[in-house]
Amino acid sequence: MLEKIKKANDIKKIPVENLPQLAKEIRRQLIETVSRTGGHLASNLGAVELTIALHYVYTLPRDKIIWDVGHQSYTHKILTGRHDVFDTLRQEGGISGFPRRSESTCDVWDSGHSSSSISAGLGYVRARDLNHENYHVVSVIGDGALTGGMAYEALNNAAQLKTNFVIVLNDNNMSISKNVGGMHNYLAQLRTSPYYVDLKENVKERLEKKPGGDELVMRIRRTKNSIKQLVIPGMFFEDMGITYLGPVDGHNIRAMIEAFRTAERMKGPVLVHVVTQKGRGYQPAVHHPERFHGASPFDLRNGVPLDNGVTTYTDIFSTVMVKMGDRNPKVCAVTAAMEEGTGLKRFANHFPDRFFDTGIAEEHAVTFAAGLALGGRIPIVAVYSAFLQRAYDQILDDVCLQNLHVILCVDRAGFVGPDGATHNGCFDLSYLSMMPNMTVMAPKNKWELSDMVKFAVDSDGPVAIRYPKGAAWDGLSDHREPVEKGRAEVISRGHGIALLAIGSMVQTACAVADSLRKDGFDPTVVNMRFVKPFDEELLRELSGDHDLFVTLEENVRTGGFGEQVAAFVCEEQLPVRVRIEAVPDIFIHHATVARQREKAGLDPETIAQDIREHLPA
Amino acid sequence: MLEKIKKANDIKKIPVENLPQLAKEIRRQLIETVSRTGGHLASNLGAVELTIALHYVYTLPRDKIIWDVGHQSYTHKILTGRHDVFDTLRQEGGISGFPRRSESTCDVWDSGHSSSSISAGLGYVRARDLNHENYHVVSVIGDGALTGGMAYEALNNAAQLKTNFVIVLNDNNMSISKNVGGMHNYLAQLRTSPYYVDLKENVKERLEKKPGGDELVMRIRRTKNSIKQLVIPGMFFEDMGITYLGPVDGHNIRAMIEAFRTAERMKGPVLVHVVTQKGRGYQPAVHHPERFHGASPFDLRNGVPLDNGVTTYTDIFSTVMVKMGDRNPKVCAVTAAMEEGTGLKRFANHFPDRFFDTGIAEEHAVTFAAGLALGGRIPIVAVYSAFLQRAYDQILDDVCLQNLHVILCVDRAGFVGPDGATHNGCFDLSYLSMMPNMTVMAPKNKWELSDMVKFAVDSDGPVAIRYPKGAAWDGLSDHREPVEKGRAEVISRGHGIALLAIGSMVQTACAVADSLRKDGFDPTVVNMRFVKPFDEELLRELSGDHDLFVTLEENVRTGGFGEQVAAFVCEEQLPVRVRIEAVPDIFIHHATVARQREKAGLDPETIAQDIREHLPA
Repeated sequence: MLEKIKKANDIKKIPVENLPQLAKEIRRQLIETVSRTGGHLASNLGAVELTIALHYVYTLPRDKIIWDVGHQSYTHKILTGRHDVFDTLRQEGGISGFPRRSESTCDVWDSGHSSSSISAGLGYVRARDLNHENYHVVSVIGDGALTGGMAYEALNNAAQLKTNFVIVLNDNNMSISKNVGGMHNYLAQLRTSPYYVDLKENVKERLEKKPGGDELVMRIRRTKNSIKQLVIPGMFFEDMGITYLGPVDGHNIRAMIEAFRTAERMKGPVLVHVVTQKGRGYQPAVHHPERFHGASPFDLRNGVPLDNGVTTYTDIFSTVMVKMGDRNPKVCAVTAAMEEGTGLKRFANHFPDRFFDTGIAEEHAVTFAAGLALGGRIPIVAVYSAFLQRAYDQILDDVCLQNLHVILCVDRAGFVGPDGATHNGCFDLSYLSMMPNMTVMAPKNKWELSDMVKFAVDSDGPVAIRYPKGAAWDGLSDHREPVEKGRAEVISRGHGIALLAIGSMVQTACAVADSLRKDGFDPTVVNMRFVKPFDEELLRELSGDHDLFVTLEENVRTGGFGEQVAAFVCEEQLPVRVRIEAVPDIFIHHATVARQREKAGLDPETIAQDIREHLPA
Repeated sequence: MLEKIKKANDIKKIPVENLPQLAKEIRRQLIETVSRTGGHLASNLGAVELTIALHYVYTLPRDKIIWDVGHQSYTHKILTGRHDVFDTLRQEGGISGFPRRSESTCDVWDSGHSSSSISAGLGYVRARDLNHENYHVVSVIGDGALTGGMAYEALNNAAQLKTNFVIVLNDNNMSISKNVGGMHNYLAQLRTSPYYVDLKENVKERLEKKPGGDELVMRIRRTKNSIKQLVIPGMFFEDMGITYLGPVDGHNIRAMIEAFRTAERMKGPVLVHVVTQKGRGYQPAVHHPERFHGASPFDLRNGVPLDNGVTTYTDIFSTVMVKMGDRNPKVCAVTAAMEEGTGLKRFANHFPDRFFDTGIAEEHAVTFAAGLALGGRIPIVAVYSAFLQRAYDQILDDVCLQNLHVILCVDRAGFVGPDGATHNGCFDLSYLSMMPNMTVMAPKNKWELSDMVKFAVDSDGPVAIRYPKGAAWDGLSDHREPVEKGRAEVISRGHGIALLAIGSMVQTACAVADSLRKDGFDPTVVNMRFVKPFDEELLRELSGDHDLFVTLEENVRTGGFGEQVAAFVCEEQLPVRVRIEAVPDIFIHHATVARQREKAGLDPETIAQDIREHLPA
């Protein structure tokens, strides 16, 4: 069946009764491919029928389907001419794990971060209306993404709309972690309502038949709360001015087709509440939806990951957090729907009272932590670098301005590989360094991460520690000087060339140094440890017998460590040249981390070559 | 009466029946003081009775009252020992216009930005419970601030709470501009309900008396929607798990005291919906609440501003926007509750279909604009620099990553004076420069702002233009070279010292140059125009007959224009020294703009002196 679908809208030729068979074939392909490439399996398995129904009702690329976050768009890709290349998923030069406009005219929004689809969709709708066009716009958002405040801002704004805009709430009862919060509880109530067919009509009719007969109804009317409030589920949305349709069984294609056709005919914003099961059709994913949210390649038969045995920085953080929790009862942990991803699960198990999951709500998470600090606790907010971007203002205005002891543990800093540009964490050194009162550090290896977390807990004011995705480096185990604020650690003292590296780039600097030594150079290698404040004293000292400083960071050049060093050298007139090795001013798309570093010119060979070309005369 | 209140809790000695008289006296003081100092009048006039009732019920500083945004905290300051110094409001060394922990133990949260009070309050609550303390936490949030998604994130998270947390919704039916959106419409319904006394109890009782008698009730029960949904106003909040009390007349002190005492006894989060009138008690403010939101000094008798006649950058922007709207039908304007503040009112009047106010929702506003751009429009988002910080991730991930033609007109960039540190816009050059695809510019004078907006509309990709608060400079009127991407404008060509200035600092550079000329120097003055991309070619050329580059920017040093230039000079080995004049790594508090610049070392005298001290030998 799948073979017949060569391009968008081919699906419309398949009789409705055959669509479940198509779903089956797609599901098989999803499981097989992702077991090899890794990717977001559970959410895609849950959205197969939903996507089929959407493609059956809407006509692409004329109509616009906007996928929130976008990790659930695999079926959409398969149905829009990318079946043949689906096995290149998330690989360099292959198709992205997220919608990409450069890939297909059917992808209309480059997504990656949560909770933005309604805003984007509303923009399309307003443009459509101004242009007097008449396509449909459908934003598909998960219940997890609905915990992000931005989604609510957009719902609030969409409520004023007089023209059609369909919002599909793909409710799988999960955020990345187990979903949390008031909205979750509310949806749980709705979810267990009888499925939407004609309940609404029935009850409405009943009411309309006895308009004045019931004293209670009259009383409500007198209070001017809309009569709708009596009987229609989804009042939360209706109260805002958004028509609610649902709940609809998200694995019943026919029911969804009917609901979307109803929604299509309505004026104003309509929310279709579709109830799906994360991981549907693959038992390991049904039972461990969090593990299969973003999965590494796994054994198809039992779902066991293939790359087991690697100790990641997240694992190290996980361990040290339990220690910190034991040692200091003030320590609390805060995550934004990333209990597992950030490694806080063990802390949560050990200290459930001191663990807080805010849902996908980085803004709130950071300011909540500021409140915890004011209340006398030591909050550690664990979050991915790319998502911490959401809380830029809160870090600056609520944490740094008040100089509060809030610790940010910034995971997935630098390149992240197959998830691509939206998930790379290449900006944090820049955006954190510019904030007064902030301390910014990055560990060279696994022991140093541990030491830095301890340092941060015993420290004062805002502190950020950033560390990369993947295996924690276990090199340089014999270099473990105590962490001291603003002090770098000299790994090897030479002369001429000084390699000033931060975090993950210390390992690279060692490789670069080895390469340069073969050419007869005797480079100094420094583990900077702190970007803010950085070790000015050491740089002054090194300028005595070095004539080239090379800065190395897995962060954008602008505003990063290198520019800060260059500005320092320049203003202080240190007699050295500076060469900045940093992520250039472009977005780096999906590939392996190693290849992303190469594309950024941050692999040891490229750096060594660049240094050779820029040696002082 | 007011004279009796020397410190916190003194108010409790006043009999309840005399509190309205107290309110009258406070109101008189507010009007008199703000007519001289300027400040947030309308919101404070609306919150007088509310604040009195809160102080009557709660005990400070033990209990924590957290004011959202904080501009409505004047009465709180008067009631907590700051009556005597109230006439120093917003002046250097005087009391801040916002709560400041450094000012009083009764101020427990340094606010300034919107929608964060529930997050902060929840942090306090969780810390309190972990510490086994038993104080009360009250977050006071306006209906305007409730359009910010962060508030919703916090409500969602608070719903899980089992202990007391009081959220006071101060509903004055206004954002800074007229409030908008679905939540606004919803609150409008509630607002017109009979005031909360015992309606809730009555109806509950009635229901409980006939548990199975009504078929309709049974039907609802069967659908497992809570029976509460039938009869209680405020279901939007109740649906999330937050008890709703209200609406309460926000000018009836006795009613509020009763409501707060009820709220105080409840387990879990309670929202008390208080209906107030913005500007209450001063007719000009009642009639023009937007003008009296943040007011300049005015004539007490009629409310007319004293400093009329000054043309601001906002005025210039306002005019050019109408022109742009006329000239290009694709141009749309987007604001986040700042129709008047950003100068978009005229555009909105001329082109109502192309004007969009999202409410206080910068995140949504930016991504909505990205959607508009994809739909074929040219959106111009007008927003204050300090508040655009909220949308850092959206600018980076939704606009820049997709390289969309979204124009950011960033008002109030640099120092803003009496509003203080939270409102200074000193970070935008840094946080915008680091984003790939972004163009960043700043005009030297009023004509250039106009030219830059036109340039931006005819341009491509993301473009940001930042300009300061206050009077638009009309100097250098004879320098009006066409704006060309990445090209600076040489104002006067000398040799030796080159003053490289951006935006507001061009005027300063001219004054510095005059000063240096008196010492016999012949400095070059450059209006850089673009921070990204900056005019590298010109810098290379200037390095031929200059030995000192002085960069001037009203932006933090880290990641700013100066560091970028220094890094360029350093890497290119241009034979010049660089001196960076920028905002240092501290927060600069309320004072006049001129004094803030002095504190930052950015006044002409300090800069000229600094240059003399750093001249090349």
